[in-house]
Amino acid sequence: MHTYDKTQLNHVKRGPKRATYDQSEIYEIIDNHMICHVAYVHEGNPITIPTGYGRIGDTLYLHGSMKNRMLLGLTALKQASVTVTHLDGLVLARSVFHHSVNYRSAVIFGAPRLVSERKEKMQALEAITENFIPGRWKEARLPNEKEFEATLVIAIPIESASAKIRAEGVNDEKADLALDVWAGVIPLKTVTGEPIPEPDLKPEIDIPSYVNNFLSEKDL
Amino acid sequence: MHTYDKTQLNHVKRGPKRATYDQSEIYEIIDNHMICHVAYVHEGNPITIPTGYGRIGDTLYLHGSMKNRMLLGLTALKQASVTVTHLDGLVLARSVFHHSVNYRSAVIFGAPRLVSERKEKMQALEAITENFIPGRWKEARLPNEKEFEATLVIAIPIESASAKIRAEGVNDEKADLALDVWAGVIPLKTVTGEPIPEPDLKPEIDIPSYVNNFLSEKDL
Repeated sequence: MHTYDKTQLNHVKRGPKRATYDQSEIYEIIDNHMICHVAYVHEGNPITIPTGYGRIGDTLYLHGSMKNRMLLGLTALKQASVTVTHLDGLVLARSVFHHSVNYRSAVIFGAPRLVSERKEKMQALEAITENFIPGRWKEARLPNEKEFEATLVIAIPIESASAKIRAEGVNDEKADLALDVWAGVIPLKTVTGEPIPEPDLKPEIDIPSYVNNFLSEKDL
Repeated sequence: MHTYDKTQLNHVKRGPKRATYDQSEIYEIIDNHMICHVAYVHEGNPITIPTGYGRIGDTLYLHGSMKNRMLLGLTALKQASVTVTHLDGLVLARSVFHHSVNYRSAVIFGAPRLVSERKEKMQALEAITENFIPGRWKEARLPNEKEFEATLVIAIPIESASAKIRAEGVNDEKADLALDVWAGVIPLKTVTGEPIPEPDLKPEIDIPSYVNNFLSEKDL
């Protein structure tokens, strides 16, 4: 089990009881979502936007168009950070002050680099595709030369990371327990709907087994 | 209908066909979620973390502890930005290259300010609570003086904004339509589970009607 060193960068200052620096817990948070938020700075202003990602070992990969201003901006950073957040429930305490949410949120830090080596770039695209839906890479048409060249891939080695996890009931003040106020947790989860085949899909093509496998409850 | 001016700040450069600058569309994206990602800069490094929020008119409110490094860092910015993202589905094209997701993502920009005026601060806390679950503010115990003082509230006037929305099927290359590859959209939605009352809840307290109202399909 690897644990990240607590540094100025990844140290969780608010709510340290909910913090974890354990690599396997952090990778579990990352691997079970599809969308991350990437922070970057555009003309002095911090901005964050969502994007897909894939992980291979200790490297997180992002991709986009060769003209993507966020990705290009990242390559100029010594330290990029990427956040993956699962919202798991609403925590309704008897007092407004103790209301909270159950969630799992991981932040990873590393020095981004442009991926130009052909084999690594293709493996990164495979990891990003498979992170959305395992099995897809083997069925879909792979990138041709033009598509491959038009795609920008950035690697972020996961050099530091931390996560915060809240997964419990209400923490009310003792004096509030006597109040006539409902208190409890409302779980939230992400589920898949019925797949919508393209209208022009050949009628003989059935939903693949890996899509059916995917159609269970998600935990985003 | 208000439309935000396209500026260097909010101009959507990638995928402009999916961009909107319409205030009502952007507010709908914001008002139908519970968690935003706030970008900030900590010792030169851009970072983003999730937090709750509430909107009153053209102002977005965030809150946290008086010691919250992200919120305190925001007040030093001339321009903060907050992103709200809904993931609505996976778009499986016949080619890897045209894989996509259906989503709604809004980014708002504004000059953050500390809220110290008592009435505005209380209204902001109400908006943040009600954004999680409408009706809760009227039932839960309101903040006492100590709790009120321990809470930091930041206002971000929504001075500029933009959103990107993808809500459609697959856009494949014509030549790929003949491939024997399943193509279509897998919808994703967030749903509530059965509420879990606190073990020490007085047995005579039923689930309130506003909680029951909330227990329908979410659209996060």
